[in-house]
Amino acid sequence: MRRSIINDPDELIPQALEGLALSHPTLLELHAEHRFLTRKEPARNKVGLVSGGGSGHEPLHAGFVGTGMLDVAVAGAVFASPTALQVLEATRAADSGRGVVQIVKNYTGDVLNFRIAGEISGDDAIETEIVLVDDDLATETEDGGGPGRRGTAATVIVEKVCGAAAEEGATLAEVAEIGRRAAASARTMSLALSAGTHPGDEEPQFTLGDDEVELGVGIHGERAAQRVPFTDADGLTDLLLGPLLAELELGHGDMVLAIVNGLGSTYPLELNVVARALHHRLGEAGIEISRSLVGPYVTSLDMHGVSITLMPLDDEMRRLWDAPVRTPALTW
Amino acid sequence: MRRSIINDPDELIPQALEGLALSHPTLLELHAEHRFLTRKEPARNKVGLVSGGGSGHEPLHAGFVGTGMLDVAVAGAVFASPTALQVLEATRAADSGRGVVQIVKNYTGDVLNFRIAGEISGDDAIETEIVLVDDDLATETEDGGGPGRRGTAATVIVEKVCGAAAEEGATLAEVAEIGRRAAASARTMSLALSAGTHPGDEEPQFTLGDDEVELGVGIHGERAAQRVPFTDADGLTDLLLGPLLAELELGHGDMVLAIVNGLGSTYPLELNVVARALHHRLGEAGIEISRSLVGPYVTSLDMHGVSITLMPLDDEMRRLWDAPVRTPALTW
Repeated sequence: MRRSIINDPDELIPQALEGLALSHPTLLELHAEHRFLTRKEPARNKVGLVSGGGSGHEPLHAGFVGTGMLDVAVAGAVFASPTALQVLEATRAADSGRGVVQIVKNYTGDVLNFRIAGEISGDDAIETEIVLVDDDLATETEDGGGPGRRGTAATVIVEKVCGAAAEEGATLAEVAEIGRRAAASARTMSLALSAGTHPGDEEPQFTLGDDEVELGVGIHGERAAQRVPFTDADGLTDLLLGPLLAELELGHGDMVLAIVNGLGSTYPLELNVVARALHHRLGEAGIEISRSLVGPYVTSLDMHGVSITLMPLDDEMRRLWDAPVRTPALTW
Repeated sequence: MRRSIINDPDELIPQALEGLALSHPTLLELHAEHRFLTRKEPARNKVGLVSGGGSGHEPLHAGFVGTGMLDVAVAGAVFASPTALQVLEATRAADSGRGVVQIVKNYTGDVLNFRIAGEISGDDAIETEIVLVDDDLATETEDGGGPGRRGTAATVIVEKVCGAAAEEGATLAEVAEIGRRAAASARTMSLALSAGTHPGDEEPQFTLGDDEVELGVGIHGERAAQRVPFTDADGLTDLLLGPLLAELELGHGDMVLAIVNGLGSTYPLELNVVARALHHRLGEAGIEISRSLVGPYVTSLDMHGVSITLMPLDDEMRRLWDAPVRTPALTW
């Protein structure tokens, strides 16, 4: 069993948001009523960027509020979308007169609530554009039917490059285009050795046999279509990389941005061993990891697992990725 | 049971170090033979700073190599000191002619191996000073006998302020004095709800009853003298804070640096709730948290627990803390 370090479960999200804001008093400001965080010093005369979604994926999204990235992050309950009203107020807070890009992970509730908020904010004469992140290759369907691919760790990339473009003074359409281009080219595969446990629960969301790996797991503990045999770090890396390489059609001389993302309780020794395997495997194929992040960026509570995200990197995307950023979870 | 994402356990540390270096090609350089990492661009004409110790505490120490912090970090096996020979080579690598400060967590093996390395490097005409970090209040003895307090999360503070002083051009004696002053004034208390699991093992280092909390746990899974009843986040924060406030004699108007440190699998929602409680409790006592870190900085594999470190902050320490730093795990 797992016990949680929380108070009243119903107060968890507001208390955690308050704690985050108190810990970053020069970066963040809490708007308690609608459970969103803004930059302490609001940006002026730029396209606004708002993101958000269910909690339990920290540091996503509030950890990415700050110069060069988001203006506002709005938080739902654990694994549940914020309401349309919350998103509306967050969108209003993100606007400084040049419109707002809403970065939305592709889940039904999130898409619905951001869309409603976007329509209503149009009545306030706030122009909005939705950028949908749908990088999870495990949820690709052959006919493209159904709700489509889920949004996972590529969200960090989309938030980063949109943030840089907005900071440079790009228009609403330009920022949205950059985000859509990043989302269209980034893909992720995830696996878990054990599921996360909801705050206040004592049992994980699912259990696996001693020899099983959940290949294609979701960040809300969604089960995968496949359970495959457990193997070592190099083998697990190959399980993630195979589908990614087949999909992205990368070849000799290509450069990529890679995220080796810990899903919660994966320790850094493990992530670094996967990062090493990834460098070796791609290197053997003549593909260069020219930028990377290794760490817990888009988590699923304390899930023990790892995801790999790859995005081909052209000059413009690399420039936007390299642009200065100052947020609680990403700074350079 | 917990399975690990590793290859051959005997190759874990070299592979993880290689992965870390590959992920930070502009910051870090791997010296594989003696298992240490240096800055990619060695600093010149400054006091060198070397630290290290057993692995399993990542991002400590290699995550703190870079401008404004360490020059070299040397890694032992999981929870085991690096050898004197490793430390000697790491100390040599850290020297640019103005001597080397060795930052050492107070554990018998580490102290012994750093001391031997310091003595031998004297034969190379490298002057060394050891700064011992011994912040763990749970291991305070009334008569001051025994091995003394263990070194835990205050190591990050000592590495940061010594790094800043060295970067400013302070002498060997001055950098050591800054480090000793930080170490003398910072104290930490830790608790765990469950122990970590060694890479390759399937069972955690110890188990607790459903209602028990290990208060005063060590970062190597050392059991504490006390097991206390489980309670909520505010109550757990009080358990850590009580002894710290009694020891540090903080009062109205004092300012502190605080670290709310995750021990491995504690998720950010939990750490943020503890950070909130800490702000409230200290605020009620008129004590201001003027700087803080909240996150996993000195871990114990995937232990589920949290530590709080407090250090009174004077103008000089705040200036050194605020100085620019650029490392894998700490950048501003």
